[in-house]
Amino acid sequence: MDSKVVADTLWVLVTGFLVFFMNLGFATVESGFARSKNCVNILSKNFIVFAVSSMGFLLLGWGLMFGDGNGFIGLSGIFMVSGADNSPAVGAAYQGVYSAISWTGVPLWAKFFFQLVFCGTAATIVSGAVAERIKYVSFILFSFVLTLVIYPIVGHWIWGGGFLASLGMFDFAGGSVVHSVGGWAALSGVLVLGPRVGKYTKDGKIHPIPGHSMSLATIGAFVLWLGWFGFNPGSTMAADPMAISHILVTTNTAGVMGILVSTIVAWLVVGKPDLGMSINGLLAGLVAITPSCAYVSVPSSILIGAISGAIVVVSVIFFDRMKIDDPVGAISVHLVNGVLGTLEVGLFAQDGIAGVSTGNGLFFGGGLKLLGAQALGVVCVGGFVFVSSLVVWYIIKATIGVRVSLKEEMDGLDIGEHGNQAYPDFVMQKTSYTLISKDIGLEFARQNKAGTKEESKV
Amino acid sequence: MDSKVVADTLWVLVTGFLVFFMNLGFATVESGFARSKNCVNILSKNFIVFAVSSMGFLLLGWGLMFGDGNGFIGLSGIFMVSGADNSPAVGAAYQGVYSAISWTGVPLWAKFFFQLVFCGTAATIVSGAVAERIKYVSFILFSFVLTLVIYPIVGHWIWGGGFLASLGMFDFAGGSVVHSVGGWAALSGVLVLGPRVGKYTKDGKIHPIPGHSMSLATIGAFVLWLGWFGFNPGSTMAADPMAISHILVTTNTAGVMGILVSTIVAWLVVGKPDLGMSINGLLAGLVAITPSCAYVSVPSSILIGAISGAIVVVSVIFFDRMKIDDPVGAISVHLVNGVLGTLEVGLFAQDGIAGVSTGNGLFFGGGLKLLGAQALGVVCVGGFVFVSSLVVWYIIKATIGVRVSLKEEMDGLDIGEHGNQAYPDFVMQKTSYTLISKDIGLEFARQNKAGTKEESKV
Amino acid sequence: MDSKVVADTLWVLVTGFLVFFMNLGFATVESGFARSKNCVNILSKNFIVFAVSSMGFLLLGWGLMFGDGNGFIGLSGIFMVSGADNSPAVGAAYQGVYSAISWTGVPLWAKFFFQLVFCGTAATIVSGAVAERIKYVSFILFSFVLTLVIYPIVGHWIWGGGFLASLGMFDFAGGSVVHSVGGWAALSGVLVLGPRVGKYTKDGKIHPIPGHSMSLATIGAFVLWLGWFGFNPGSTMAADPMAISHILVTTNTAGVMGILVSTIVAWLVVGKPDLGMSINGLLAGLVAITPSCAYVSVPSSILIGAISGAIVVVSVIFFDRMKIDDPVGAISVHLVNGVLGTLEVGLFAQDGIAGVSTGNGLFFGGGLKLLGAQALGVVCVGGFVFVSSLVVWYIIKATIGVRVSLKEEMDGLDIGEHGNQAYPDFVMQKTSYTLISKDIGLEFARQNKAGTKEESKV
Repeated sequence: MDSKVVADTLWVLVTGFLVFFMNLGFATVESGFARSKNCVNILSKNFIVFAVSSMGFLLLGWGLMFGDGNGFIGLSGIFMVSGADNSPAVGAAYQGVYSAISWTGVPLWAKFFFQLVFCGTAATIVSGAVAERIKYVSFILFSFVLTLVIYPIVGHWIWGGGFLASLGMFDFAGGSVVHSVGGWAALSGVLVLGPRVGKYTKDGKIHPIPGHSMSLATIGAFVLWLGWFGFNPGSTMAADPMAISHILVTTNTAGVMGILVSTIVAWLVVGKPDLGMSINGLLAGLVAITPSCAYVSVPSSILIGAISGAIVVVSVIFFDRMKIDDPVGAISVHLVNGVLGTLEVGLFAQDGIAGVSTGNGLFFGGGLKLLGAQALGVVCVGGFVFVSSLVVWYIIKATIGVRVSLKEEMDGLDIGEHGNQAYPDFVMQKTSYTLISKDIGLEFARQNKAGTKEESKV
Repeated sequence: MDSKVVADTLWVLVTGFLVFFMNLGFATVESGFARSKNCVNILSKNFIVFAVSSMGFLLLGWGLMFGDGNGFIGLSGIFMVSGADNSPAVGAAYQGVYSAISWTGVPLWAKFFFQLVFCGTAATIVSGAVAERIKYVSFILFSFVLTLVIYPIVGHWIWGGGFLASLGMFDFAGGSVVHSVGGWAALSGVLVLGPRVGKYTKDGKIHPIPGHSMSLATIGAFVLWLGWFGFNPGSTMAADPMAISHILVTTNTAGVMGILVSTIVAWLVVGKPDLGMSINGLLAGLVAITPSCAYVSVPSSILIGAISGAIVVVSVIFFDRMKIDDPVGAISVHLVNGVLGTLEVGLFAQDGIAGVSTGNGLFFGGGLKLLGAQALGVVCVGGFVFVSSLVVWYIIKATIGVRVSLKEEMDGLDIGEHGNQAYPDFVMQKTSYTLISKDIGLEFARQNKAGTKEESKV
Repeated sequence: MDSKVVADTLWVLVTGFLVFFMNLGFATVESGFARSKNCVNILSKNFIVFAVSSMGFLLLGWGLMFGDGNGFIGLSGIFMVSGADNSPAVGAAYQGVYSAISWTGVPLWAKFFFQLVFCGTAATIVSGAVAERIKYVSFILFSFVLTLVIYPIVGHWIWGGGFLASLGMFDFAGGSVVHSVGGWAALSGVLVLGPRVGKYTKDGKIHPIPGHSMSLATIGAFVLWLGWFGFNPGSTMAADPMAISHILVTTNTAGVMGILVSTIVAWLVVGKPDLGMSINGLLAGLVAITPSCAYVSVPSSILIGAISGAIVVVSVIFFDRMKIDDPVGAISVHLVNGVLGTLEVGLFAQDGIAGVSTGNGLFFGGGLKLLGAQALGVVCVGGFVFVSSLVVWYIIKATIGVRVSLKEEMDGLDIGEHGNQAYPDFVMQKTSYTLISKDIGLEFARQNKAGTKEESKV
C-alpha cells in the first residue's frame, strides 16, 4: 500500500482514538459538576451515548451526511455504509457514492470511524446541559434521533458537499457541525425541561448548586484537552506535517489563553480564581479555535482564546440570570463559542495558512465576503437544529415524558432511574427540601446544621 | 530504514501503549466495583501486576512462547530475550530463533513490548475475580508463575507456531490466548479461595455487595474501551490500512451492541438499567469480538456483540447462584466470552475479510471444520490452564496461604495488608458484622441505622 | 512531503501528546497524596501551570533555549518563535536561527510543541513539593519565570548547543534538563516556604500526613507511566524503529524494577507494602533511566531501576528527618533520581547502543571521562537553578508573599484561595488544631473521637 495512505490512516485512527476518549472527558467533567445523587445517571448517559451514536451513525447517519445527493441531504448508500466505494482512492480515481469525502485517502471504515467520533461528541454535549432532571430513556431516544438524522443533515450541508460549503462557509474541525449542533440541541432540551428544582426560587434568587467532585471535573478537563489534539489536528484527515503541527499549536494556544483569561476575569468578578470557570475557559478557547485552527496564525489564536475566556464567564452568568439552567455550562461553552468561533473564521482567516485556501477574513483585508458566508452558516445551522430538536423534545415529552418526577429529582436520579448509588460506602451530606408550593418556584432549603445531620438514607 | 518498517513499528508501539493503558482501566473498574475498605489492596495488586508480568515475560515468558521449539513449548533463546534475531527482517530473510513471529517486520524489542502488554492483560484479569480476600503476596506469586510459564505455553500453542495453530485454530487478538487464559486462572483462584465472608449465607441468601465508586468503574470502562482499539487493530502488528480500519469498526460495533443489549436485558430482568451491567456488557462484547475481529463482517460483529450483551447478564446471575463469588464479573466477561468468541470464529468467519485466509465458518458455508478446530483449542487451553493454575494455587495455599484472616477480611485488606486507607479524610459508612458461626455460612449483618452510626475507626 | 518527515512528525506529535498527558498524571498523583481540604488548590495549580508554561515558552523560552547564540544563552529569534527557519530541512540544508535543533526533520511547530511539553513537566514537578501552603498567585508567578527564563537557559546548555553539550555531557530525555531542574526549583521553594503546620512538632516528632485518595494517586501513576513512553522514546524526535523500541523497553524495565524494589524495601523497613512508596518507586526508576535510556542495555536498565527503587525509600525518609517537607516526595523522585540518573550515564553507557555514539561509561571500560562530564553538568545545573530559583522565591516572598496565612492553611487552601470545595456532598473527617505556640513548632492535634465529631464546616 502507498506509504501516504499508510501514514494518513495511522494519523486518522490515532487522532480518532483521542476524540473517542473525549467521551471519558465529558463523562467526568459533567459528573464532577453535578451532585453525587445524580452521578450514576450522568455516567450512565455519557457511557451509553456513544453506543447509541455508533448505531445511529452506522444505520443512517453516515449515508445521510456523506452519501451523494443534493445540497440538503445525502441520498446514496445510506443504510449501513453499504454504498459503492473504492477508498482509499482519491480525486479522479475515486469511484463510489461518498464523493464528498473522497479528498482524504484513507479506507472507508477509517473515514467512518473518524466521523463517528465527531458525531458522538455532538450527542454527548447535550448530556451535561440536561443533567439532573431528564429521564434516562428520553435522553437515549433524543440522542438516537440526533445522531441518526439531525447531525448528519447539518454535516451534509457543510462537510458533505451541501449548500453551505458551496456558498463558501468554512468550518475546519466542527465548531458549527459539532459544537453548535450539540449546543443548540442542548439549549432546546433545557428550555423544554425547565430548570432543576431549587435552582431559581420564587423570591428571585439564583442558588448555586456545586458539583460533587472537582477531582473528577479536572480529570475530565485534561482528557478533553488531550482529545482536542485529535479533534483539530486530526481533521486534516491526512498526515500533513506542516498543517498538523500548525493546527496543534493554534489549538493549544487558544485553549491556554481561555484558561488564563477566564481565571483572571472570574478572579475580578467573583473575587476568587474559580477552578470551574478555568475549566470552562479552557473548553471555550478550544471550541472557539475549532472552526479556524487551520486558517489562522498563532498570534490570532492568542486573541481568539482570550476573547472566549472572557466571553464564557459573562455567558455563564447571563444564562443563569435568564433562568436557563445548564448545570455544566455546556451552552456557554459549546453553543456560544461554537457560533463565535465560526464567525471568527470570517475575521481572522489568512489565505494560505497551513496550505488552505480560504481567502482572507475581515481583519486581514478580505472584507465581509467570508464573514457573510460564516454568518449565513450560523443562522441556517441554528435555525434547523433548534427547531428540529424542539420538535423531537416535544414529541418525547408528549409520549413518554422528558422529566423525572419531583420526588425522584429530589431523591436523586441514581436511585430512581438506576436503583443504584455512586458511593455507597461514604457518608453523604443530608440535604433536606421543604416543599412550599408546587409551581415552578418550589421553595428549597438545604440544611446542614451540625447535630441535626443524618446520614443519607441508603 | 524501509518506510514500511517505520510505519509498522509506529503502529505496533502506539497500539501497545493503548493496551498497556488497560492496566489503568482494570485497576479502576475493579477497585470501583469493590468496597472502599479493600481499595488500596486492589489498586496495589493492579499496579504491581504489570511490574511482575514485565519481569516474568522478560526472564522466560517471551522465549517459551516464541522461541523455536516443538509444538508444545519454545526451547530456544529463552532467557532474557537473548536469542539470535535479525528483526525487522521478515520471511526468508529472517535469521534467528523467534521464527514464529518473524511474519511481522518490526524490531525485536517492539515485538517483545507488544506481546508483553498482552501477557500483562491476562494476569490483571485474575486480580478482579480474587479481590477482597486474597493475600497480596500470594497474588504476586501466582501472577509471576502465570506470566513466566503458563501464559507463554498456551501462547506458544496458538501464536508461537505450536500444535493448535498447526491444527487450524484461529485467535486473532487473543480471545483464548489472553482472555480465556486469564478467565480460567481466575476461576481456579476463586474456587480455591472460596467466596467472600457474608456473600452467601447459611439461609441460602445471596447478598449483593455493591462497589464503592461508580465513577472509578466508569473511568475504567472508557479506558478499557480505548485500550481495545489498540488490542484488536494493533494485533495486525502491521500498519495495514484496510485491515486495521475494518478491525476497529468490528471491535467498536461489538462493544456498543454489548452495551445496548446488556442494558436492555438488565432493564427487563432487574427492572432498572444497571450501569455495572452496561459496563460488563461492553467488556463482554469486546472480549467476544477479539478472536474474530479481523475475520468477520460488520453486520456479524453486531450479532456477536448482541449475543454477548445478553449472555453476560445471564452468566453473572448463573455464577452467583453457583456460589462462585467473582466481585467484578471477570469470569463472565473474560472466560465465558473468551470461549464464546473463540467458537464464534467457527461460525461467523468469512474467508478473505481484511485480507486474512481463514476459510468460512459454519454460517457462511464452511461446514464444521473451522468450528471443530476452535472447539479443540477451547478444550486444550481450558484443560491446561485450569489444571495448572489449580496446582499453583494449591501449592501457594499449602505454603504461605492464599486467604487473609477472617478479621482482616472483615476490617478490610487495606489496613491488614498495607497499613493504609484509600480515603482517610472521608467519613465512611460503618458496617458491622455479627459472627454467628465459623463455618462457610458466616452470618453477616450490615447495620446502617441512623443515630447508631459511628465513623470508621481510622 | 518526504515519507521520513511524515513518520517523524507523527511520532513527535503522538509522543508529545503522551507527555502533555503527564499533566493529568501529576495533577492526580499530587492531589491524591494531599489532603482533601487542599485538593481544589492543587488541581488548580496543576491545571493552570501548563497554560502558564505554554505562554512562557512561547513568549521567550523557546528562543532562549534553541535560538543561535553563545554557549550560555540563545540570542536569535527569541520572541514568539519568530526567527527564520526552514524546517523540516535538516543538516546542511537547514537555514534558520534554531540550528541546535535542526538535527530533527520535523516542522518548527512540531519541535516547539514537543519541547513545550517537556518545559511544562519541569514546572509541574514544583507543584507537588510546595503543596498545601503556597499562595496560588505566587506559584503562578514562579512557574512563569521558570518556563520563561530558568528552564530555557539550562536547556540551552545541554540541548541548545551550549557549553555542557560541548563538554561532552549527555542527557538523552531530560533527567537533568527536566527532572533535576524541576527538583532544584522545588527544593528551593520548600526551603523558602518551610514545612506545613503540624508536620514537625516541637517535641521532635514527625507526623505523617496521609493523602486523601489513593485512587487518584494510582490513576496518576498509570498516566505518568504511559506518559514516559512518550517522554523517553519520543526524545529521538524521529521514528527510528530500532532506537524507539529499545528505549521503550529500557524505560519500562527500569520503572518496573523501581516498583518491585521499592515495594520490597518499604515492606522490610515499614513492615507493609506501602502503595505510595511503590508509586514513588515507579517514578524514581523512570526518572533515573530518563537520561540514559538510549545509551544502556536492558540488563543495565534493570540495575538502574533497582537502585532507584531502593534509593527513593531512603531519600523520602532522609528528607523527612531533615525536616524538609515535601508532601508528595517530588524532591526524592525528581531531584535525587534526576541527578543519580545523569551520573549513571557515566557508569552504564555503552557506545553504539540504539545507534548513539556516547563512548563507554565507567562500568564498560570507558574510564572517568564520561562520568566527569556528567558530574560537571550536575553541578552546573544544580548551582544555577537552585540559586536563581531562590532569588525568584525571595523576590516573590518580599513582594506579594509566598505562603498563605496560618488560618487559611489550617482551614484548607480550597476555601481561602478558591472559595470552593472539592467534595461538598461528602461528610469529611473533622480535624481540630490546637494552637499552642506561634513559632515554627506549632503544636497540632488531630481529634477524631467518636461522638465528638462534627461534620466539616462548609
